[in-house]
Amino acid sequence: MKVSARNLIPATIKQITQGAVNSEVVMEIAPGVELVSIITKHSVENLGLKEGSKVKAMVKASSVMVVTD
Amino acid sequence: MKVSARNLIPATIKQITQGAVNSEVVMEIAPGVELVSIITKHSVENLGLKEGSKVKAMVKASSVMVVTD
Amino acid sequence: MKVSARNLIPATIKQITQGAVNSEVVMEIAPGVELVSIITKHSVENLGLKEGSKVKAMVKASSVMVVTD
Amino acid sequence: MKVSARNLIPATIKQITQGAVNSEVVMEIAPGVELVSIITKHSVENLGLKEGSKVKAMVKASSVMVVTD
Amino acid sequence: MKVSARNLIPATIKQITQGAVNSEVVMEIAPGVELVSIITKHSVENLGLKEGSKVKAMVKASSVMVVTD
Amino acid sequence: MKVSARNLIPATIKQITQGAVNSEVVMEIAPGVELVSIITKHSVENLGLKEGSKVKAMVKASSVMVVTD
Repeated sequence: MKVSARNLIPATIKQITQGAVNSEVVMEIAPGVELVSIITKHSVENLGLKEGSKVKAMVKASSVMVVTD
Repeated sequence: MKVSARNLIPATIKQITQGAVNSEVVMEIAPGVELVSIITKHSVENLGLKEGSKVKAMVKASSVMVVTD
Repeated sequence: MKVSARNLIPATIKQITQGAVNSEVVMEIAPGVELVSIITKHSVENLGLKEGSKVKAMVKASSVMVVTD
Repeated sequence: MKVSARNLIPATIKQITQGAVNSEVVMEIAPGVELVSIITKHSVENLGLKEGSKVKAMVKASSVMVVTD
Repeated sequence: MKVSARNLIPATIKQITQGAVNSEVVMEIAPGVELVSIITKHSVENLGLKEGSKVKAMVKASSVMVVTD
Repeated sequence: MKVSARNLIPATIKQITQGAVNSEVVMEIAPGVELVSIITKHSVENLGLKEGSKVKAMVKASSVMVVTD
């Protein structure tokens, strides 16, 4: 399976907060560097995500912005 | 200035490809780990982005997906 | 700090509804013109947002659609 | 026709820049306040958009971020 | 009313799950083919959506990815 | 490989328009029902997409809106 999304970053899940519809998934992509995702509660269950899971964070390039100081 | 977007990742610009309207900005966030962004050509010029620029990649949490093997 | 996002609109927060994961933030950008945002509950707390706060609404240009009659 | 997108802002088109695939549409939503949209060139043609057109800018609430000073 | 969003797919609502802020709307676009949307609870109520409602699912082209085997 | 994105729709590519940075990919998901995607030119080449390719269109649930008459 190959996806057009340009960004696939290896990550480890640190924390999951469940809501009624959405869940917040906090991942670590490097020591001290977190990446946060909001996905549906259904997907958290369907993928069997839990703290410690090795996953990839995926982001479409058109969703990435650039910031300067 | 503080933003609600949860993800701000330090990065260095490696390559910029200009189109008529949009530009592709390839960044490096760790040795060998790239992050690609599509922003407007106008923003590339307005922020004075070029190869080697130290920036931050910014992503809203609701734009981040999770992938498992 | 400069961002590639093209749209930054001065706004005043009128109402915040908190969920377990996400919050709805209703802003006013002109008399009678509202703009609604969904951000994480964590960001509402981290930015100290409350009714009456003077903020800016930020939108990436690729997220804006155009409608005609 | 009613849409779930929470944000529909009356606007006037000021400038359109055409690329091969995407177009940049600069709108004015209040005197001196611009809103920029990237849509397909096909949609610009299909909707018959041109400078001076009275339109509405539409944004899904989950695409709106909040910024503080 | 015409929209720049390129994708408008006829659908029937099968299930709605309400959260405090967001709702999950499961639609059927063909026998056995589902399409899931997250919109605000406010929009579900404002549009009077319920199971069995005939609607259209709308997606901006820049939000669609492509996957191969 | 499993993804959190809730929507994966089988499709056949009908037409690809290449720009300098982005490409427009028109797919058919049912007889007469098209789905249009904007992805980077790089992804079109990397995935080897061409007219007639059997693919899946992928959409995150938070990018799907609902429209009523």
